[in-house]
Amino acid sequence: MKAVVFDRTLEVVDAPRPVFTGDESLVRLIQAGICNTDLEITRGYFGFKGVLGHEFVGRVESSRTSSLVGARVVGEINAACCRCEFCRSGRGRHCPQRSVLGILNRDGAFREHFTLPEQNLHPVPDSVSDDDAVFVEPVAAACEILDQVDIQRVEKIAVLGDGKLGLLIAMVLAQARRATYPPLTLIGKHPEKMRLVEDLGVSTLHLGSTQAAARSFQLVVEATGSPSGLDLALRLLEPRGTVVLKSTFHGRQSFDPASVVVDELTLLGSRCGRFEPALDLLVRKRIRPSRLIRDSLPLTQAVEAFRLAQSPGVLKVLLHP
Amino acid sequence: MKAVVFDRTLEVVDAPRPVFTGDESLVRLIQAGICNTDLEITRGYFGFKGVLGHEFVGRVESSRTSSLVGARVVGEINAACCRCEFCRSGRGRHCPQRSVLGILNRDGAFREHFTLPEQNLHPVPDSVSDDDAVFVEPVAAACEILDQVDIQRVEKIAVLGDGKLGLLIAMVLAQARRATYPPLTLIGKHPEKMRLVEDLGVSTLHLGSTQAAARSFQLVVEATGSPSGLDLALRLLEPRGTVVLKSTFHGRQSFDPASVVVDELTLLGSRCGRFEPALDLLVRKRIRPSRLIRDSLPLTQAVEAFRLAQSPGVLKVLLHP
Repeated sequence: MKAVVFDRTLEVVDAPRPVFTGDESLVRLIQAGICNTDLEITRGYFGFKGVLGHEFVGRVESSRTSSLVGARVVGEINAACCRCEFCRSGRGRHCPQRSVLGILNRDGAFREHFTLPEQNLHPVPDSVSDDDAVFVEPVAAACEILDQVDIQRVEKIAVLGDGKLGLLIAMVLAQARRATYPPLTLIGKHPEKMRLVEDLGVSTLHLGSTQAAARSFQLVVEATGSPSGLDLALRLLEPRGTVVLKSTFHGRQSFDPASVVVDELTLLGSRCGRFEPALDLLVRKRIRPSRLIRDSLPLTQAVEAFRLAQSPGVLKVLLHP
Repeated sequence: MKAVVFDRTLEVVDAPRPVFTGDESLVRLIQAGICNTDLEITRGYFGFKGVLGHEFVGRVESSRTSSLVGARVVGEINAACCRCEFCRSGRGRHCPQRSVLGILNRDGAFREHFTLPEQNLHPVPDSVSDDDAVFVEPVAAACEILDQVDIQRVEKIAVLGDGKLGLLIAMVLAQARRATYPPLTLIGKHPEKMRLVEDLGVSTLHLGSTQAAARSFQLVVEATGSPSGLDLALRLLEPRGTVVLKSTFHGRQSFDPASVVVDELTLLGSRCGRFEPALDLLVRKRIRPSRLIRDSLPLTQAVEAFRLAQSPGVLKVLLHP
């Protein structure tokens, strides 16, 4: 079968099809999404080598749980030990022994077949299309913010960054907040991308016009994917405000410690989230992430797909068998 | 009267005594403490020029509130406008129009007489000595952590830094936590300083021996006063842990953003606190900060006192008229 492997360079190789051993469930790929983390890995982030890919929708071919066989599924990417203190207290996504699909000690989903523990798999209701379902993993990452911050108590919110994740976060937060609050502000540099969320009542602001917005938000989500995003995020915050850090990139990050201490700001790291609320948003058609899809290419053209995915202005690029 | 002024260099000058105009209360200094922020200001932090000093105990000589006249007082250092959105919502310490005693747009307490708004002044009960009372401001800054974090829910806490503020924070947090939790850990490099809090049930760890403590705390208070403290603080945290940032210094601070995002860590800036809980701790003899005093010098010897205050191993140096 075809598999997209990174080991210093990105290649499409012929790899043996994984065998169902009765332990993890065997999934056949329907389609998968290229995420910024995949692009960062090809730049050295995390030092991962192996099959990439962690956003997918697939169909279960073999499982020891008979009700899963034949089901269309999405899958949580952290495979936890289920025994340690973190797992026992409901923090399995932080299990120190975990492997992470296509990111850490586990080959990913950019291949025709792969395996995952059955407890990681979530059946997708028929009403959700493959094109929306492939976004469940990043939508869950956006929903994680709702588990970390009570946004019902936050009047003034900005999302910084109009890339794939920034747009998904804007969608998720916009539908979750009180109708009586002022619109959420999306700050970016691509009017054509920002237009994709305007129908959700999101107000947009160009990155070059943020001077007047200084110290005017209680919550800023930093999703620029760039080290320069944090300084602006901190400038946009009111005293005692919170910046949610969503950007994962390779390298160090700096900030002015006096502003954080004097204004008593909070910086809050945020990664993967629960799949249940993400699937629920798609079932109830609260958000339609499929509008971010730019193109879908076969696995055999993965190198070209990666090149397209990192071109300026391009949003989600999918891969299919 | 004598006043300790910083304007590129530190000098003791003869300054006119402030006049009581019926507006702010006039206070006669009993004694004042030299804080690390004073030392940082003499290195350029905040660009402040004027009379230094913000930790004091004094006696009210004139006030429009007759009950205050003759009272021994300590004073909150943020003088707020009392009219803006922040002031009206109880966040006067973050009032954008505020002046700050000896730090921002307001001459400080290192002089024989000074003025402060009456609402900033707190009478000190007779049972609290001048030597403990002079610590109310930094003890309030330590108590601010209790207003920001519910430490009753945090089992494993470390305080990083055995300077004046680190020791006060260790005292305040140690007396506040549940007796059934493991002892709070103070991490520093001066055994003779760390010994000052051991009778409070604080366990101590040398900065050079923290390897085995990696990822083992849920809360770390960073009070080293140095840019290098944050990296260690983050290494000491469990996933989803919190580092409270207490160090104020001039310059930038850097960190590894991937560790913060992947482990979903929180960085929380923390500055001044309410005086009521700090005074209460002193009245109930829950902590005895006066043990940190190294020496007390007259205002005329302030330059020598500052030199002493920044010598290795020296804790609190006081100034008196």
